[in-house]
Amino acid sequence: MITLYDLKTLHTGTRRGISPHTWKVRFALRFKGIPYTLRCIEMGDIEATAKSIGALPTSKKADGSPQYTIPFIQDSKTGKVISDSFDIIEYLDITYPETISMIPKGTRLLQGYFGQAAYKIIATQIMPVSASLIPTPYHTQGMAEWFRITRPDFVKVSPEQEKEGWEKFRSELGEVARLMKETDVFAMGDRVSFADCVLFGQLMVLKFFWNEETTEWKEMMNWHGGRWGRLIAAYYNLPDVEVQPEDPSS
Amino acid sequence: MITLYDLKTLHTGTRRGISPHTWKVRFALRFKGIPYTLRCIEMGDIEATAKSIGALPTSKKADGSPQYTIPFIQDSKTGKVISDSFDIIEYLDITYPETISMIPKGTRLLQGYFGQAAYKIIATQIMPVSASLIPTPYHTQGMAEWFRITRPDFVKVSPEQEKEGWEKFRSELGEVARLMKETDVFAMGDRVSFADCVLFGQLMVLKFFWNEETTEWKEMMNWHGGRWGRLIAAYYNLPDVEVQPEDPSS
Repeated sequence: MITLYDLKTLHTGTRRGISPHTWKVRFALRFKGIPYTLRCIEMGDIEATAKSIGALPTSKKADGSPQYTIPFIQDSKTGKVISDSFDIIEYLDITYPETISMIPKGTRLLQGYFGQAAYKIIATQIMPVSASLIPTPYHTQGMAEWFRITRPDFVKVSPEQEKEGWEKFRSELGEVARLMKETDVFAMGDRVSFADCVLFGQLMVLKFFWNEETTEWKEMMNWHGGRWGRLIAAYYNLPDVEVQPEDPSS
Repeated sequence: MITLYDLKTLHTGTRRGISPHTWKVRFALRFKGIPYTLRCIEMGDIEATAKSIGALPTSKKADGSPQYTIPFIQDSKTGKVISDSFDIIEYLDITYPETISMIPKGTRLLQGYFGQAAYKIIATQIMPVSASLIPTPYHTQGMAEWFRITRPDFVKVSPEQEKEGWEKFRSELGEVARLMKETDVFAMGDRVSFADCVLFGQLMVLKFFWNEETTEWKEMMNWHGGRWGRLIAAYYNLPDVEVQPEDPSS
């Protein structure tokens, strides 16, 4: 069984999940049909938890010390522990070759660069908007504190900045849509790949703030000919592979 | 015969060429083995020349009026005129299907997004550095004037900003290299594609300022295990398909 680590929130059930990078892996696991348990920890516990199971850091902090990040996975079948969403998904492709490959041959650089670039170009536009909604009733106290202390510039956004953020986010997603055919569900047209994990992750993290009933979510699902709604539907139309934990608080 | 439009400089022969976007098309044409003539015009003549042959604008200016850009091509075989490097290369793939396809099936979005993102993320780092070398002895007077008038903030860059620009450029290219195998020449591994046109274009435009003998160029060719040097060599190892014009000033 795969154990996948994410950050703890007060959302429960399948609504749990706050990291766009963890949502990439959840998308891949569902398309692959590989069962997993989501284990949710506090922001302040990432480093200790990672170290306790042997998950490697993914980058360096400004002071040069190792930076541990969500997600990481532990695979009880192989005993392997892997950090970083791209590396995790590549590991799943290699370890479970009978499942759908998310990084088709020859596309490793293009897929990986899409992930990095989409995060730099698309995700940064929506971050101040979503952070302006902090603290929400669904943040744990630890997460709300972390935002207030480490990202104080995010937490206060003017209505004009919020509107501008939304418009830029929509516009950058539009650049992606412009490169797709009208009927395409996936980035590669008729087959799913890592790029879809990335786009899905970006959208799903917004569900932390905006659920199906909000105007924001409904509008997004209709942007660019409704293609993001079709991507979300493609995920939900597949059988659920998340095994709910016995302790619902974890 | 394909006529490909670029900007006029005082460089002659195969050294002509200043737009990274035109270099993408020249790379594709050489790999495809399609002969072409490079026709070089002044910056101030882009719009009139484009209109005179029916080349469409590629975007809008801040005031909403149409923006005409280099490159565009005129294909005497089909009578077609196409603007925008991506659209031109896709046109060549479709019109000359017996040549190497630069946008392999299923990769259109990934290739196109790589081109856009690499320009936003990689190219912007080196632009202030190269602009700081303006005017060079190889700029026409019109081009030097254009830079002085429209990009005055570019033209004066401090030594610290120049060093920082180089480091960021190198670092962003390193992100690409990190996704490749050590021995790969091309972005897709063993086959050439549009992403290579993009990377080649970025490097070749720097040859306007730094030729093979400069420290800058030699260092770049050795970055990241020498892979950019191998990409440049892959181009030069193919037969030249540029037909030199009878009037060397055009």
